[in-house]
Amino acid sequence: MRAAGRPAPAAISEHPLPSLPLALTQGDPAGVGPELTLRAWQERRERTLPAFACIANPGHLRRTAERLGWHVPIRECGWSDAPAVFSQALPVIPLEQPVEAAAGEPDPSSAAATIASIDRAVAAVRSGQTGAVVTNPIAKSVLYAAGFKHPGHTEYLAHLAADGGVEPLPVMMLWCEELAVVPVTIHVPLREVPDLLTAPLIVETARIVAVGLRRQFGIAAPRLALSGLNPHAGENGTMGREDEEIVKPAIAQLRAEGVDARGPYPADTMFHARARAGYDVALAMYHDQALIPIKTIAFDDGVNVTLGLPFIRTSPDHGTAFDIAGRGIARPDSLCAALKLAARMAERQDTVSRA
Amino acid sequence: MRAAGRPAPAAISEHPLPSLPLALTQGDPAGVGPELTLRAWQERRERTLPAFACIANPGHLRRTAERLGWHVPIRECGWSDAPAVFSQALPVIPLEQPVEAAAGEPDPSSAAATIASIDRAVAAVRSGQTGAVVTNPIAKSVLYAAGFKHPGHTEYLAHLAADGGVEPLPVMMLWCEELAVVPVTIHVPLREVPDLLTAPLIVETARIVAVGLRRQFGIAAPRLALSGLNPHAGENGTMGREDEEIVKPAIAQLRAEGVDARGPYPADTMFHARARAGYDVALAMYHDQALIPIKTIAFDDGVNVTLGLPFIRTSPDHGTAFDIAGRGIARPDSLCAALKLAARMAERQDTVSRA
Repeated sequence: MRAAGRPAPAAISEHPLPSLPLALTQGDPAGVGPELTLRAWQERRERTLPAFACIANPGHLRRTAERLGWHVPIRECGWSDAPAVFSQALPVIPLEQPVEAAAGEPDPSSAAATIASIDRAVAAVRSGQTGAVVTNPIAKSVLYAAGFKHPGHTEYLAHLAADGGVEPLPVMMLWCEELAVVPVTIHVPLREVPDLLTAPLIVETARIVAVGLRRQFGIAAPRLALSGLNPHAGENGTMGREDEEIVKPAIAQLRAEGVDARGPYPADTMFHARARAGYDVALAMYHDQALIPIKTIAFDDGVNVTLGLPFIRTSPDHGTAFDIAGRGIARPDSLCAALKLAARMAERQDTVSRA
Repeated sequence: MRAAGRPAPAAISEHPLPSLPLALTQGDPAGVGPELTLRAWQERRERTLPAFACIANPGHLRRTAERLGWHVPIRECGWSDAPAVFSQALPVIPLEQPVEAAAGEPDPSSAAATIASIDRAVAAVRSGQTGAVVTNPIAKSVLYAAGFKHPGHTEYLAHLAADGGVEPLPVMMLWCEELAVVPVTIHVPLREVPDLLTAPLIVETARIVAVGLRRQFGIAAPRLALSGLNPHAGENGTMGREDEEIVKPAIAQLRAEGVDARGPYPADTMFHARARAGYDVALAMYHDQALIPIKTIAFDDGVNVTLGLPFIRTSPDHGTAFDIAGRGIARPDSLCAALKLAARMAERQDTVSRA
């Protein structure tokens, strides 16, 4: 792969922070979301965090801070006040739904608040009150017990983003300063991957990624590097046919459409530092092919970015971690990275839309 | 995974160099092997390389040095003289077989020399004239054209190591200072992996790895971490059954035999620095799952180690690179790392066998 002609997404420079506060959802109140939110606010200066407001039950956040013995003033406010409040107190857009769940003990009675927080965040970003949505982790099983009908967090966001009844296709990108990577197939048994992988799926995913990097990362002509499905990208068809019959035609179609797609590259040799300089994002064909390199490089501060939505959404790349919730030991690195990236994306998006 | 109770293989300390020279094979003379051999000798002091002797056609090595304009005195010698020669000249155990191949132009007429070099290396290590075999890369297709009947380099070494007609099962381990990893299945289409993966294969591979780390790395009770086949190691059987039905029973059997095997771990979260401190070697279920993390971390200086042979064998983790051979631009990092690791393993093996 050629050397970088311009910086990778990794290298998006830190622009002046956007004036709109970020919308941070509550997440599952029994998980680590509340304590990470408090911790992030406490460390806002050292970590140079952008202003954010948490959409949450304020009483629950106050109780969480008290139980941990952390001094975090909670101030209920509206979106317009939040940036000014942020330096003095944690701005909270208040939810009235009850939150009784104790840390580590998920409780469906809190599900209405968890869902309302997401709804309010999407409404705020669509009406221009916030620049981006950052979501704390939820647990689907808890929401299902309360009647939630959507397959997951991201699918629910796509549902809320539906335009004229048509839901966008959300695409998960994992991002750290050194690497951005998108798995084309995700949470499926490895055995099913070869049959699920189709040229149309690759093409549709890559189109969304290319548009997302243009609009939300401000990269005019994103360089996409696609991995092969098989070892050594199939060695010209001698070790599996999918790279010849599925991945190569998808790349050809993308190039015909003007997308700078390259590959298929052997997955094992495309993630070291010199190779990474040659592309803006890697598309891997399945979960571990994408997540192994980024979690090897950036275990603590990887960010999950959802491309394809009509607004910016980032989240930490960990779950609710019920097993350690309430102890104050969860690391806020990934949430803080998600907040900082969301602010940088919002600034870039503004620049692109003004251009 | 718990924190390291003792250093990983990565941390094998550099012992006094063994007194026996290492045996370095010629490899395909049209590939990068000859120039890397010359370069390694030139850089022997900066890189603190152990003494090695190359089993090669001396005229071909001299012509290679001349064409590159590199000053490398070539001295034909025997094993016992090699350590003394090494400081003054590149010691060469001379082959009489002709070598006419030009760099970048593989030629079956040189195959006899390529094979003879391997034969001589194995004879030397089995008779105690050298402490370890380090192999330069060969190209199977060139050897096949000359009548070679073995599936590959490593299988040929296993054939030469046969004891009473029984060939050992060689196991490939990729090693760098930070990580050692073994793929349980290797060069097969991804589609075939789930059916090729069996508990007996995992158990047999792990046994060989455990014995190899004990004998050749001097680790008394090696800690083996096994990955799951599926994303998130199958999430308790909800995302593929193989981790429950194949990997877990294999781990249980290994533990019953006294092997410190753990897992299955989600492959994406087992290769970052803190996780790596908890094991001595990772067993991954397929090629990319093993090679992505190590090549992401150590692209230039990874080493290929063959466990399961009755002698030490390392090699650089790259091929003949015919496309750049003869230009003097190939990096000797991996060959040098292979030489240094072989010397450290020889020293450890001596310590273990004296104990």
